[in-house]
Amino acid sequence: MNDVARVDGLAPGVAAERIKPILPMLGAELLGTLILVATVVGSGIMAERLAGGNVAIALLGNTIPTGAILYVLITIFGPVSGAYFNPAVTLVFALRREISWGRGLMFIGAQIIGGVLGTILANFMFDLPLIEASTKLREGSSQFASEIVATFCLVISILGALRANSRAVAMVVALVITAAYWFTASTSFANPAVAIARSLSNTFAGVAPGNVPAFIAAELIGALAALVIAERIFGWTASRST
Amino acid sequence: MNDVARVDGLAPGVAAERIKPILPMLGAELLGTLILVATVVGSGIMAERLAGGNVAIALLGNTIPTGAILYVLITIFGPVSGAYFNPAVTLVFALRREISWGRGLMFIGAQIIGGVLGTILANFMFDLPLIEASTKLREGSSQFASEIVATFCLVISILGALRANSRAVAMVVALVITAAYWFTASTSFANPAVAIARSLSNTFAGVAPGNVPAFIAAELIGALAALVIAERIFGWTASRST
Amino acid sequence: MNDVARVDGLAPGVAAERIKPILPMLGAELLGTLILVATVVGSGIMAERLAGGNVAIALLGNTIPTGAILYVLITIFGPVSGAYFNPAVTLVFALRREISWGRGLMFIGAQIIGGVLGTILANFMFDLPLIEASTKLREGSSQFASEIVATFCLVISILGALRANSRAVAMVVALVITAAYWFTASTSFANPAVAIARSLSNTFAGVAPGNVPAFIAAELIGALAALVIAERIFGWTASRST
Amino acid sequence: MNDVARVDGLAPGVAAERIKPILPMLGAELLGTLILVATVVGSGIMAERLAGGNVAIALLGNTIPTGAILYVLITIFGPVSGAYFNPAVTLVFALRREISWGRGLMFIGAQIIGGVLGTILANFMFDLPLIEASTKLREGSSQFASEIVATFCLVISILGALRANSRAVAMVVALVITAAYWFTASTSFANPAVAIARSLSNTFAGVAPGNVPAFIAAELIGALAALVIAERIFGWTASRST
Repeated sequence: MNDVARVDGLAPGVAAERIKPILPMLGAELLGTLILVATVVGSGIMAERLAGGNVAIALLGNTIPTGAILYVLITIFGPVSGAYFNPAVTLVFALRREISWGRGLMFIGAQIIGGVLGTILANFMFDLPLIEASTKLREGSSQFASEIVATFCLVISILGALRANSRAVAMVVALVITAAYWFTASTSFANPAVAIARSLSNTFAGVAPGNVPAFIAAELIGALAALVIAERIFGWTASRST
Repeated sequence: MNDVARVDGLAPGVAAERIKPILPMLGAELLGTLILVATVVGSGIMAERLAGGNVAIALLGNTIPTGAILYVLITIFGPVSGAYFNPAVTLVFALRREISWGRGLMFIGAQIIGGVLGTILANFMFDLPLIEASTKLREGSSQFASEIVATFCLVISILGALRANSRAVAMVVALVITAAYWFTASTSFANPAVAIARSLSNTFAGVAPGNVPAFIAAELIGALAALVIAERIFGWTASRST
Repeated sequence: MNDVARVDGLAPGVAAERIKPILPMLGAELLGTLILVATVVGSGIMAERLAGGNVAIALLGNTIPTGAILYVLITIFGPVSGAYFNPAVTLVFALRREISWGRGLMFIGAQIIGGVLGTILANFMFDLPLIEASTKLREGSSQFASEIVATFCLVISILGALRANSRAVAMVVALVITAAYWFTASTSFANPAVAIARSLSNTFAGVAPGNVPAFIAAELIGALAALVIAERIFGWTASRST
Repeated sequence: MNDVARVDGLAPGVAAERIKPILPMLGAELLGTLILVATVVGSGIMAERLAGGNVAIALLGNTIPTGAILYVLITIFGPVSGAYFNPAVTLVFALRREISWGRGLMFIGAQIIGGVLGTILANFMFDLPLIEASTKLREGSSQFASEIVATFCLVISILGALRANSRAVAMVVALVITAAYWFTASTSFANPAVAIARSLSNTFAGVAPGNVPAFIAAELIGALAALVIAERIFGWTASRST
């Protein structure tokens, strides 16, 4: 951000878009979400197959890779696209005028496509049908509340880390998701693109397609609540390199 | 701290309070303790439910999220309020004149309220009674000694890290608690607000309310001992951004 | 790199070779690959022996040490040799002209020798035959695809981290391999020298020698694909201290 | 080191000793080794009690706390005493003339006393006899070789990290021990003071007193070998803040 001239009174994030090409950014969002979902779904399959029926061990084997890959993906793709990989996060940054609505919509499209491709890749690597609707029901008020909490914690962590120490964002996101896999009843999807993608693998990390709309609604509520609270607590307009 | 004019010969921490608004700080302390306790209690519930009776696996599923969320919360709320989340730590900083007694008392109130709300949230997410007294007895001299040791290690780590490398405080606190969950017989509460909050969930992380006063006494002893030893070993008045 | 005069219009990495002695670099590549393979094979033996038949626990006990030692080895040997420890990575840097072909071939020789010595050391520490062909079959299209994906993720992570924040390379490599042990069906060898070395221990981390050529082919495909994609997304010639 | 005037042609580490008081340093070495051993022994007791007979899970519950506390102790005590906590490491720095022999001997005394007190504390917290000779035999050539390898890896990692990036020493030591718990057959004591202390608890982390001399001999061999190899590979006299 620092090396970008402020143009025409636009918010700095939006102004910066004029001089950055879009294709590498969309590639980063698509590929990052693809690898993220392949990790979530793939490690879930591996963990469940090996855990001999102990679901806590399987969840450890799902949690550690997910946290690890988040650190990697945010570190390497952050300078390219901001490393959102998440429509709810993208929405928050559009509302903060750090990304334009047009670009935000393109990002969300890339995230959804990347997520679905990530599921297909994981299914292929483990010799499963490339796409198969999940039969795992995740519903009820505790699941709904859990997704609100998970996404709230994710978004407030991102906004807080950007204000406190932008170098820490990758580790903060990795670790808040690590924690939320265990302290929420929904194992913390916290990401509409990931929720859609996870509905297409009938494995450990899956979610029945019929539950996805409620998940997405809860995620958007959590994200918006975090935006409101963050602006009160952090009292300051954080900037994020886009 | 560096950007604050020294005023009237007050200790720098106390002087700085004149120009920082209190509400965001109380919000940070309340919300941080809330999320911390929700993680401790929630991951305990999840871990115990899934671990198939293997308590070591359950404790791993309780330890990893707790360490992870501590890194996150201290990183994001540290610049706002100091990220104490802990009455024993707040007491130490009041004794060091890095926070005034009045402000310290308000912090402690926010921490206790946040902790109780965190238990309620965790219980709600897992479909349990919102508040239920724990029946888990944690008593005897080994438990008492363990809480002294745990809080001693926590406080000396905070004071040492502030002196050595303030950027490392979040990781140091996350990892000293990670270790203390395993090397103390009490699984290291090390925090009076957390001890109170944990007495209100009859689950893995609970503690019988009747044991809480002894836990708090042990925690204060450990914190004060760490303050005395730290000043001898570190020989230097560390400052902490408040 | 910064303190090296650019010579004769050569690419900077190749020019720098003129003033750096080769023996410490080969020692670093050999010793680093040796310790890496001793960790992979040795922790696999230890984990399988202790895990009581639960393969997910054994894989946790194999994953955590592997990620840990990668951080250590890249941190300490990075300034000496670049800390490649991997013929596929070395090939990518030769194609980028960051290392000369002659030096690259010497590195690959040191890596292969180091890897084999690492297997011998692990077998010796655990009272096993020093060299024994593995009987563990890892074959078929899902294994082949998995190795492509694993090496792709490793190489794009290295190239991205070098561009984004070269201080993060050690942690990025440690964590991408941590994740890939779980999200690929092959448990992510992603390294021809390691694949050869692992074929010589008939234990948890082994691979039948007959499967090694396909593993190496898949790894080279993945590495080259990552090079092509990285140049499109990162749009910039990253430099790596050699 | 940077703020210390070079005096009389002495090696800089030794010259620096003239202006630093010894008591806080001895306190740091004693307290650091005490907490380290209390963690190793205490987490071993906790892990074995809870693991239901699965030794791999017990070793995970021993490894994670040990790595965590090493990061903490080196971060907080490093600026005070160098955070050796280990007679073999102290010997290496005396040979490098970074610490005088007199001071080195006092450090080793503090480390041994601290280690024994750490065992006593762990035994007390878990309601065990304060001192009890271990009956766990760890002997034979594979154990001996393992301790050489473990200490070699520890010392070369310290020397390499000091040269490469002194801020990374705490994480490097934490992670090399994390790895070595699993890839050596001895679970990597790598520390004479810790070996002595561990012989006094008849629990998971114990070692029969009769095996301790061989452990110490192997550790010294490994440390000296690392010193020789490090000077060849790193080709440079690293300095360490004492």
